[in-house]
This record gives sequence, C-alpha cells and structure tokens, in this order.
Amino acid sequence: MSSRRNFIQLTSLGLATAAMQVPLAGIAASAAQKKPNLSLGIAGYTFSKIEMASAITMMKRLDVSNLSLKDVYLPLSSSDEKIRSVVSQLQQNGINIYTVGVIYMKTREAVDQAFDYAKKVGVNMIVGVPTYDLLDYAETKVKLLNLRLAIHNHGPEDELYPGPQQVYDRIKNRDPRMGLCLDIGHATRAGVNPARAVKAYKDRLFDLHIKDVTGNTRDAKTIEIGRGVIDFEGFMKALRQVNYKGVCSFEFEKDMQDPLPGLAESMGFFKGTMALI
Amino acid sequence: MSSRRNFIQLTSLGLATAAMQVPLAGIAASAAQKKPNLSLGIAGYTFSKIEMASAITMMKRLDVSNLSLKDVYLPLSSSDEKIRSVVSQLQQNGINIYTVGVIYMKTREAVDQAFDYAKKVGVNMIVGVPTYDLLDYAETKVKLLNLRLAIHNHGPEDELYPGPQQVYDRIKNRDPRMGLCLDIGHATRAGVNPARAVKAYKDRLFDLHIKDVTGNTRDAKTIEIGRGVIDFEGFMKALRQVNYKGVCSFEFEKDMQDPLPGLAESMGFFKGTMALI
Repeated sequence: MSSRRNFIQLTSLGLATAAMQVPLAGIAASAAQKKPNLSLGIAGYTFSKIEMASAITMMKRLDVSNLSLKDVYLPLSSSDEKIRSVVSQLQQNGINIYTVGVIYMKTREAVDQAFDYAKKVGVNMIVGVPTYDLLDYAETKVKLLNLRLAIHNHGPEDELYPGPQQVYDRIKNRDPRMGLCLDIGHATRAGVNPARAVKAYKDRLFDLHIKDVTGNTRDAKTIEIGRGVIDFEGFMKALRQVNYKGVCSFEFEKDMQDPLPGLAESMGFFKGTMALI
Repeated sequence: MSSRRNFIQLTSLGLATAAMQVPLAGIAASAAQKKPNLSLGIAGYTFSKIEMASAITMMKRLDVSNLSLKDVYLPLSSSDEKIRSVVSQLQQNGINIYTVGVIYMKTREAVDQAFDYAKKVGVNMIVGVPTYDLLDYAETKVKLLNLRLAIHNHGPEDELYPGPQQVYDRIKNRDPRMGLCLDIGHATRAGVNPARAVKAYKDRLFDLHIKDVTGNTRDAKTIEIGRGVIDFEGFMKALRQVNYKGVCSFEFEKDMQDPLPGLAESMGFFKGTMALI
C-alpha cells in the first residue's frame, strides 16, 4: 500500500492528525548511515612531552587503542626486561602497539638495533628513516626477519626524504615489505597533495601520519585538523578508493605539553569526515 | 582540445613523462570546497565546574567566540557594577555574549529579574524556562523590552518542556520574538529526531544546544559527538535546508571537571560534518 493511499485512508478514518505527528518520532529509522571505520591510532611523537601514564589516559579518553611506539617511552637500547615491562604496561591498558618509530638509521649498527628492537617489541613493522646507502642492508634485514619497513617522509628541509616520492622511488622496486609511511603534513609543506600521494603510492602505502598544516610552504606549522589547508574530503576519498587497510595515526605537533585538546579536535574532525565519505 | 589529444601531442613531443608527474603538485587547485560555516558557540552550563579564566582559555583554544552566558559566572542578582565587570572581562578576551541562560522562571519577579539582567548584560535574547502560567507575562516583557525569549526543552523527565513540541505548541501563536532553544540531546532522549524538529519548528528556532547522547531513552547520557546515536548528517542537512542563522552552541555535560577534550572532539566532528554537508 502506497504511503499516499495510506494517508488517504487514515484521513477517511479521521486519523490524519495523529499520522502527521508520527514523523517527529522514529529515530531508529533515520539513524546515520555511517561509512565503514578506518583504524585510527596515535603516532607516539605526539606524546614526546607527556609521561606514559598520562598518555595512556589520553588514549583512553580519545577511545583509540593503536599506538606507533616512539622511543621516548622505550629507548632503542633498552634491556629485554625493560622492553617486556613497557610493552606489558601498554597492553594491560588495552593499547595495541602496531609499529615502532620513527627510528633514524645512519649506520648498519643502527639498522641492526632497530630491527632487533622491533622483533623484541613484537611488531611486524618499523617506521624508519634509513640513509640511502643503508637501503640495501635494510632490505636484507626485512627479508631475514620478515619485518615491514615503512620509510617516513619529512618536509622540504629534509635532505633524505623531503617528500613521499623520494621514498617511493627508492623502494618501489625492492622487496614488497618495503614501503611508505606518508606524513601528510610534511608532504603538504613539500607541495605534494596527500590524496594524490595516496593514489600514486597505494601499492606501498603502509602507514599514515595525519595532521593539518597552516600552509603548503616549508615554514607551515601543525594545526588542528580542519583549521589548516589540507583537503580532508579529497584525502578520505583517496583512502576509500585505494581501500587503505593500515592505521590512520594522528600526530599532533602543537601544544606538545598539552596535546589532548588539539588531538581530540583533530580526531573529531577526521571521524566526522569518515562518517560521510 | 581534449585532454586525450593533448596527451597524444605531448607524447609525440616526448613530454609524456613530465606531464604524468604534474598531478602530484597543484595543491591550490584541489583545496577543499568547504561549505559555508555556521556560527559556533558554547552553552555556558558546560563550564559549570570551571573558573571563568580557564573557560576563556578553553574558548580561545577551541577558536570559538560566541558564549551563552550561564549565571554561574554572573548570578542573576548581580549588581550593575558586577555585570559591567564580568561582561567587560569576557569582551576584552574576544568573547561575544550572544545570549544568557538557561534561566528558570517560576514567578513574575523571576521573569522581571531575567529580562532586566539580559538588558544590562546587553544581549537581545534570553534562553529561559518559564512556567506555563508565566507565558502571558513573559510575552508582555518580550514586547515591552524588545527581547527575544528562546524556551529550552529538557528531556522526558521534565514536567514543563519534555520535548521541543511542548515549547512550540505554547509559543507558535505568540509574538514572533518567542521561540525555541532546541536541545538536541534532550530531544533525542525524548524520542524526537533533531533534524525533523529543526524542520518542524524552523520559524521559531532561535538557538541550539548541541551534544550527542548514548541512546534515545530517558536515561541516556551526554557523550562526545560522533560516539552517540544522533544522526549529525541529517541534522546538518536540516540546518542547511532551513537556512539556520542562529548560533550552534555546544553543551558538553560529561567530564565537567575537565570538559575541554570532549568539547574539542565534539566540535571537531561537527566541523568535519559542516565542511561536507
């Protein structure tokens, strides 16, 4: 029975008034048709100035569990016992350490240390910055230890990886476990559109550092997502288009003594975008 | 000239490779096509447990200037000097007091006090809750002082205004300066869909208290926007459809000793929605 016929019948029964009031109820029928959630996380550098116990509290308040563990909470030279202790403390608080980094590697010894550390922490991926001359050696370690290496781009001031293309060009023909951690803030400062980078490097896109920036020039700064220049609509469309399966890690490099409000606003904006795109 | 012909010509000139690299630059051309911003604000009850100086700092961090002033910072019985002092302190910090309230009115004296207070604060609107028997008197004050009165709905436990319809039905035939402050959290708890309420009461929709709630039942609680049950896509579409010109005031009734992170996440989610709808 069509709704029009239904209305007419109700009218003939003198029930039109009651029927007209119905639309104000019925919340369940109009609940948001949210799009699938991507996995969210925090890039540990965000908590550089924060005690680990406070960082755990912040992650709980943000309702986020994935952490890219930065060495500020667990130095690379830590004993096995220290590693077990910190990893256990995080896990007991419901935090999933999904990668470690960013780890800089300027010597073979640093590469060895990074890969050993990752194995002991128990992750299957390192976010790192090896010098060019160490890429061959890093690749042998990737194969030997079956660990993924996501190389992180910095901005235009960086000599090694000023943008994602400088990463991609150096790993695209290497072992498929070598890829990119795309930092969309640094990329934007380098004049690179994040959405286009996602699409161009999708086959090697292992991790994301997500933030907004005040401009697309070298001296731009991190700012709460939505207040800066990055097109998050286009970025989200690109992530959906390439069916990104990694973690979207938020890195907030403003108010580092008190990052929670800006991080919360940023994640809120991203979630609002994610619900619609 | 079609892009295909263009491509072919470039290829014939040996420029295809260069042309293929162009798309990674050009951020300006793809900047977000953000929708117009609605005016955002804070409902003062959010800061019930917060010193005013801290609330000012929070509003600055949130980049929001409109405040619905609650009596916690300025009791209704304040002297003229006290009123001038508090208003001045807020204004000097860039805060725009766009209304006062929520003010409960159970006697004629309370109505007089509320309207006098609003005049002295310098706003043109009161968010209030007069008892039914005072509506005639409140209307005379509205006309006499040329002040708008936005009546605020509570939830199903409220005896006077358990939902927006109980407000609207009592003001729709009164002076056009009498209207509704729609609290979408309380409305949802009363089984009323906020988007439908916006459309149904658009001609008298003066103010909004925006939040999310954990369910559409009486015992539901405030929660960060995006984590609850309210359909913000539909709500935003309704605000656009009726061309809402008032303030969208956020009221966060969770973590009231430390509301900033939840408020930030909520405003971020709303801004993310507003940029797309």
